[in-house]
Amino acid sequence: MKITVLSGGVGGARFLRGVHENLQSRPGEHSITAVVNVGDDMWLTGLRITPDLDSIMYTLAGVNDDVRGWGRVGESERVSAELKAYGVGWDWFTLGDLDIGTHLTRTSYLRAGMPLSEATAKISARWPLGVTLIPATDHEVETHVVTADVTMHFQEWWTCYRAALPALAFEYRGSESAVAAPGVLDAIASADIVLLAPSNPVVSIGPILAIPDIRAAVLSTSAPVVGVSPIIAGAVVRGMADACLSAIGVPTAADAVATHFGARSGGGVLDGWLIDESDAALAPILEAAGIATAVVPLWMRDLPLSSTLAGDALALAARLHGR
Amino acid sequence: MKITVLSGGVGGARFLRGVHENLQSRPGEHSITAVVNVGDDMWLTGLRITPDLDSIMYTLAGVNDDVRGWGRVGESERVSAELKAYGVGWDWFTLGDLDIGTHLTRTSYLRAGMPLSEATAKISARWPLGVTLIPATDHEVETHVVTADVTMHFQEWWTCYRAALPALAFEYRGSESAVAAPGVLDAIASADIVLLAPSNPVVSIGPILAIPDIRAAVLSTSAPVVGVSPIIAGAVVRGMADACLSAIGVPTAADAVATHFGARSGGGVLDGWLIDESDAALAPILEAAGIATAVVPLWMRDLPLSSTLAGDALALAARLHGR
Repeated sequence: MKITVLSGGVGGARFLRGVHENLQSRPGEHSITAVVNVGDDMWLTGLRITPDLDSIMYTLAGVNDDVRGWGRVGESERVSAELKAYGVGWDWFTLGDLDIGTHLTRTSYLRAGMPLSEATAKISARWPLGVTLIPATDHEVETHVVTADVTMHFQEWWTCYRAALPALAFEYRGSESAVAAPGVLDAIASADIVLLAPSNPVVSIGPILAIPDIRAAVLSTSAPVVGVSPIIAGAVVRGMADACLSAIGVPTAADAVATHFGARSGGGVLDGWLIDESDAALAPILEAAGIATAVVPLWMRDLPLSSTLAGDALALAARLHGR
Repeated sequence: MKITVLSGGVGGARFLRGVHENLQSRPGEHSITAVVNVGDDMWLTGLRITPDLDSIMYTLAGVNDDVRGWGRVGESERVSAELKAYGVGWDWFTLGDLDIGTHLTRTSYLRAGMPLSEATAKISARWPLGVTLIPATDHEVETHVVTADVTMHFQEWWTCYRAALPALAFEYRGSESAVAAPGVLDAIASADIVLLAPSNPVVSIGPILAIPDIRAAVLSTSAPVVGVSPIIAGAVVRGMADACLSAIGVPTAADAVATHFGARSGGGVLDGWLIDESDAALAPILEAAGIATAVVPLWMRDLPLSSTLAGDALALAARLHGR
């Protein structure tokens, strides 16, 4: 089975672990490709930082910090303390020492002229991830947030301001002229199943689908496209997606996010959608909108639950395949 | 008193501390400018490394590792271990975590378009060094070593091969078209005394003097130019300068190094030269060659001895001034 997952960082990483775990118990050959958001990426003190790619890599490699929820386990911040002493960088954005090892490696590859997708392949080859990671694009497409007073990089709005400055709009800078990284379009076109991880719809999945040829590939793939709601019972599972959704006029609700993505039959990207049992009442609305809906437990509290959720997503896709 | 010192790394740093210490006890206003070798500089995993500038800065700031002889005290190598695990960089060249903080800061400035001299001024402003550090040039003039089989960067020859591969020649790549960094020529022209630190004559002082306008400034300054021998009793004080000297056909001897630099009266750069008491017999030879010579204890075993040596250099310069 060939599975392609559009994914953001932490939530996507947990979901990908579930997909990988779930496939272990199934007979046959399987491959998983993650098409990863690059909208959070940025240059910081001369380093290229790719938070979502790294969150996924660290999680799949089992070297992530589960307690803190991001970065490497056993991390230290000796380099960051030096940068602070020299007065460079952003003092609200911590770069761990182990993490800097990754950023330096990536940066050296990029500075040598390697595209991000190739650098990512070389870097992630360090661990047997079981998932092929491809950045959505090799272009620098960074998400910026428009607020009443200033426009800033998404990371600044998210990490420094904790998404508390009302966002008026999100700009996926450069997305219109960007093209998919090598391997992305084929991974979507030739997949048996395309999944949308329960990542932030506005700043994780949104920037991926804003790249014209990726959106076109999702619209035209023969594979069923199934998404997992990042909203449960009207609240975000993690992060501050509500602050993002409200900026684009989408209510923080499992059905609203699905209809924001839209049914493929109506020009959108979704064939199916998974919502939590607490949102069961929304299923008929979604079905009426042309989106096949499964009502299942969405909380990925541990690996077995993540695997079960992945299985539910694959089951819905199989049902759609049969149509 | 305005003192300008041409300097390499570790030995130069120790000498500069001595100069600074010596001036503390003298009345009046004093300023010390170090014109620092950049021949050892290099790009490594996307970072710009400037070993001599850093050795001097750390030593003057009192944060150097005196036991190991280079780098920062209390250093760790967590980032380096990551780079190794990713398979990038040179595994024989260790980058400490604290040191990487400096390199990242410098690299971010350079990537933002700042010349090295300006980046150095901003970085060294962190500590009250008592000495103004200026790289000899803002151009990338790197020393390469020609051996029988290959030509390599000086750092590789020095650190990886421990200078054990016979060197046939040294190339100061780009020196001919390089120009002095802002402040260097004025520091030499307007100095009361120009000193050559007891640094490696071939790969520390040599690359500085290979920059045409710096050499011209030293040749034409009205200040006495006094050097300190890096050779004592036919042996190098530290490092492997003998392997460098033999490559250019200069014996490892205090008089040979001085005549290699040459007397200013004969088109060279030296007015005076300090040799160790164990080399006292060489003084007449040097005087006959037109180089005023002082016979003094040269070993900088501690700060008081370094200060005394600096005082001896200043005394010789004062004597030459009186001529």
